[in-house]
Amino acid sequence: MNIKILDTTLRDGEQTPGVSLTSLEKLRIATKLDEIGVNFIEAGSAITSEGERQSIKDITQQNFNAEILSFSRPLEMDIDYCLECDVDAVNLVVPTSDLHIFDKLKITKEELLAMSNSAVDYCKDHGLTVELSAEDASRTSIDFLKTVYVNAIEHGADRVCLCDTVGILTPESSFEMFKQLKEDIDVPISCHCHNDFGLAVANTFAALKGGASEFHSTINGIGERAGNTSFEECVVGIYKLFPQFSTDIKIHEIYTISKLVARLTGVYIQPNKAIVGENAFAHESGIHSDGIIKNAATYESITPELVGRKRRFVIGKHMGTHGLDVRLKELGVNVSKNQLKKICDNIKVLADKGKTVTDVDLQAIADNVLEINHKDRIKLNEVTIVSGNKVMPTASVKLTVDGEEVLNAGVGIGPVDAAINAVNSLDIFDDIDFIEYHVDAITGGTDALIDVIIKLQKGDKIISARGTEPDIINASVKAYISGVNRLLSN
Amino acid sequence: MNIKILDTTLRDGEQTPGVSLTSLEKLRIATKLDEIGVNFIEAGSAITSEGERQSIKDITQQNFNAEILSFSRPLEMDIDYCLECDVDAVNLVVPTSDLHIFDKLKITKEELLAMSNSAVDYCKDHGLTVELSAEDASRTSIDFLKTVYVNAIEHGADRVCLCDTVGILTPESSFEMFKQLKEDIDVPISCHCHNDFGLAVANTFAALKGGASEFHSTINGIGERAGNTSFEECVVGIYKLFPQFSTDIKIHEIYTISKLVARLTGVYIQPNKAIVGENAFAHESGIHSDGIIKNAATYESITPELVGRKRRFVIGKHMGTHGLDVRLKELGVNVSKNQLKKICDNIKVLADKGKTVTDVDLQAIADNVLEINHKDRIKLNEVTIVSGNKVMPTASVKLTVDGEEVLNAGVGIGPVDAAINAVNSLDIFDDIDFIEYHVDAITGGTDALIDVIIKLQKGDKIISARGTEPDIINASVKAYISGVNRLLSN
Repeated sequence: MNIKILDTTLRDGEQTPGVSLTSLEKLRIATKLDEIGVNFIEAGSAITSEGERQSIKDITQQNFNAEILSFSRPLEMDIDYCLECDVDAVNLVVPTSDLHIFDKLKITKEELLAMSNSAVDYCKDHGLTVELSAEDASRTSIDFLKTVYVNAIEHGADRVCLCDTVGILTPESSFEMFKQLKEDIDVPISCHCHNDFGLAVANTFAALKGGASEFHSTINGIGERAGNTSFEECVVGIYKLFPQFSTDIKIHEIYTISKLVARLTGVYIQPNKAIVGENAFAHESGIHSDGIIKNAATYESITPELVGRKRRFVIGKHMGTHGLDVRLKELGVNVSKNQLKKICDNIKVLADKGKTVTDVDLQAIADNVLEINHKDRIKLNEVTIVSGNKVMPTASVKLTVDGEEVLNAGVGIGPVDAAINAVNSLDIFDDIDFIEYHVDAITGGTDALIDVIIKLQKGDKIISARGTEPDIINASVKAYISGVNRLLSN
Repeated sequence: MNIKILDTTLRDGEQTPGVSLTSLEKLRIATKLDEIGVNFIEAGSAITSEGERQSIKDITQQNFNAEILSFSRPLEMDIDYCLECDVDAVNLVVPTSDLHIFDKLKITKEELLAMSNSAVDYCKDHGLTVELSAEDASRTSIDFLKTVYVNAIEHGADRVCLCDTVGILTPESSFEMFKQLKEDIDVPISCHCHNDFGLAVANTFAALKGGASEFHSTINGIGERAGNTSFEECVVGIYKLFPQFSTDIKIHEIYTISKLVARLTGVYIQPNKAIVGENAFAHESGIHSDGIIKNAATYESITPELVGRKRRFVIGKHMGTHGLDVRLKELGVNVSKNQLKKICDNIKVLADKGKTVTDVDLQAIADNVLEINHKDRIKLNEVTIVSGNKVMPTASVKLTVDGEEVLNAGVGIGPVDAAINAVNSLDIFDDIDFIEYHVDAITGGTDALIDVIIKLQKGDKIISARGTEPDIINASVKAYISGVNRLLSN
C-alpha cells in the first residue's frame, strides 16, 4: 500500500522555539521537499503574520507537484488568509478533547461541532481541499471523534487526521484507535504524532497498520517541545521494516534535505540521531569495526549509501586493530601487525585521558612507532593580532619555513580570519584548501578552553587537526599549522 | 511489576564515536547512577585498556547499592580482566546469529555453544553473577536462541538478555520474541535495544509486555551509531503510560543526570529530545501558550517539575499575546491590551527576518511601544585588543558611563577574557554577575558570523543578551554592554 506523506517542517517544524525562517529559506526547503517526492506540504499558518503569508504565496506560485496547505483554525478569518495565499488545501485543526473544548475554547461540544461544520462548508464553498485534523484526538472519546469526522465528511472534508497532540499514544493504543476509525470512515485517514515519550515513529507505524494511509512528519523531527514524527526514520523504517507499505520518497536524498533543514533552522541534530546523525554510520569499537570489515551487515541494518551517506571508522580507545588498519591505510600509512598493536596501545593511553583522537594525533603516534622522523616544514614562532571595533583586524606572524625565517602580515574580517590570512599568504600554502573550520559550542566563562578542529585538503587527501587553547586565535593557528605540516610530510 | 534497569552509559554509551571519559568522570557518573536508583551499572569493558580497568576498579571499590558489571566476550582472557577489577557480575556477550557466528567469528554453531557454556562455567567457578547477552539475537532463529539460553542457564547463568544489535526489531516482533522466550526461560529476561530506526524505546516497552523484567539503556540514549534505548524516555514512559510497571528510579533527578552526562561526554542533546531536550517544556506558538496558561495539561502530558525542570515561554513569531504577556510580566513590564498587540506585531516583523528574539530585543521593542526612553547608561566607544602566542592578551576600552568618558584596560587568559575584564573593572559592574557565556558551534570558514549569547544576573533578575559579529571579541563586548544597560535600566 502506498503511503502519502504530509510534511509540516514549515509549520510545526518552524514552531520549534527560537526558529524563524525567512521567505527565501522556506522556499528552498519547500523546493527540496517537492523534489524528493513529499505528497503534501504544509507551508505555514497564514494567520501568523504578513511575512508568513508572503512565504506561503512564494511557495504556491511555484507550481509544485505537491499539494500546498496552510494551517487554519476553524474560523473564517483564518480561512480568508489561507485563500489570500492561494493554497490548494487547508489543514483545518479542530480541538476535540474535553480539556481543549471546555478549558481552552470554553465552549460546548455542540458549539464545537457547529464551528467545525461551518468552517468545512466555508472552505468547500471557496474550492479548498480540506484535511480536518482533530487536535488532542488521542485524549478524545472514540465516539465523539467519529462524530466530528463523520460530520466533517458529510460537509465535504476530503481527508481526516488524528493528532496525538501531547504524545501520549502507545503503539497499542494508536493501532486500536485507527482500527476503530477505519471501520466507519471512508476518506483517507492520517496521523500526526508528537515525540514526548520518544514514541512518535512507533505510533505512526502502528497507525498505518491500523488503517491510516497518510502521516504527518517533519524533517529531523523538529517541532514544538520534543518535536514531531521524524520524516527520515519513518521513510527508511517503512522501506526496511514494513514491506507491505511504500512511499514516493527518493530515499538517497534524505541526508541532503536533513542537512539543509538543520543548517537553515539552526536546530542541530544530535550525533546519535537515527539515519541522519553524524554517528549513524560511524564505528569505533573494535568488535564492531572488525565485524563491519568482514561483512557490513553484522553491524549495519541498511547501507549508508541508501540514504546518501558514507561509512566512517572513528579512532578512539574502543577501536580494535582492524578498524585502525583501515584508517591508517586511508591516510597512506602501511604498518606491520606488531606496529599496529603498538599504535593501538598508544591511542588508548591518549584516549584514557579523555581526549578525542584526531588524524594528526594518529599520525604523530604512527610516526613515533614507525620511527619516522618527520621534520615539520613550518614552525610558528610568533603570532600577534590587533583587533577591535575601530581597528581593522590585523595579524603578524613569524614562521620558520624550511629553516628560513619569514615574516608576514594579514588582515581579515575578525582576528582569527586575519591570523589565518597572514599565515596563508605564503606560497607553500598554495595547493592546500581549508575545507572546514569548526569550534565547538563554548559554554561557561570567557576563560573556557576552546577546542578548534579544522579539515584541510591537498589533492585528494583530507585530514583533520586540532588546537586547544584558552585563546581562540592561538588555537586556530596551531591547528592550521599542524595540519599543514602533516599534509606536506607525505 | 517492578522493572530492573541496567545502565550501560559507561560501556555502550562511551563507545559513542569520539567519546572518552577519564576515570574521575566515570566515577562521577557511576555515583549519580547509583544515587538515582539504577539497579545494575555496566562500568566498562575490562579488556579495553589499563585505564579502563582502573576506572572499573575505582567504581567497584565504592560499595554502591547497584550491582557492578563489566562487559566480557566469552573468553577466559576477558573474564580474567573482569576478575582483576573485582566486579560483581559480567555482561557476557555471545553472538548468536548465523551472520555473526559464520562471518565474524568464523566458527560453527557447536563451537559457539561450547564457547558460551565454558565461559559461563569459568565465571561461575570464580563467583561471578552472569548475565548472558545474545548479540544480534533479533536476527537469530528463536529455537537456536532458546538453545543458547537454556544451555547457559544449565551452566549457571543468572539472567539472559536479547540484544537487538542493529535495531531492526519492531514493537510487534519484539513482543513476539519475548513472549516466546518467556515460555521456556525461567530466569529474568532483559532487553538491549538500538535506535537505528527510532524504535528502541517502543521495542523496550514491547519487550516488557512480552515478558522481560529488565532493560538496558543509556543516559540520553548515547551509544554506537544511532545509540541505545534512552533511559529517561523509558523511565518516564513507564511512569506515565504503563501503570502495570514501576522502576526504582528517582524521577525528579533525571534532568540532573542527563545534563551531567551531556557535559562530561560532550555529546550534546538536540533541543527537541524528549524529556531532557532544551525545548521539551518550552512553548512558543500562540495557541499552545494560551492553552498552557489556561490549563497546562492541554499541551503537556507531564509537568516539567516531575523530572526536575521548569516550563519556559519562548518569544518568537508564532507566539500569541497570552504567552508574551507572561514573559513581559516576568521581566517586570506591565502593558495594556493594545500595547501588547503592538509589541507582538513588532516581534513578528523581527522574526520574519529570520532572527531569534532575545529578552533584550523584547525589552527594546516594549520600551519603544511604551514610549519609555531608556537612556543607556553605558556606551561603548572603542575597544582594542592585542593578543598572540607571545603577548599577554590585553584590551583597552573607551566607554561613556553616565555621560562621562572613561578609559580602562585589562588582561585575560585570551582576548575575549581580556576585553570583558577591561569593561568589568569599573564600579558600575560591581553587583552584576556574569552567569553564562555561550558561543554557538561555529562551522564554515574563519569568516563566519559569530553569535554570542550571554546571561547576566543582578539580584534575582536574570536576562539574556546577544551580539552577532564576524569578530568574536566585538560580539562578546557588545552583548555584555547591552545586557548590562538593560539590567541597570529598571
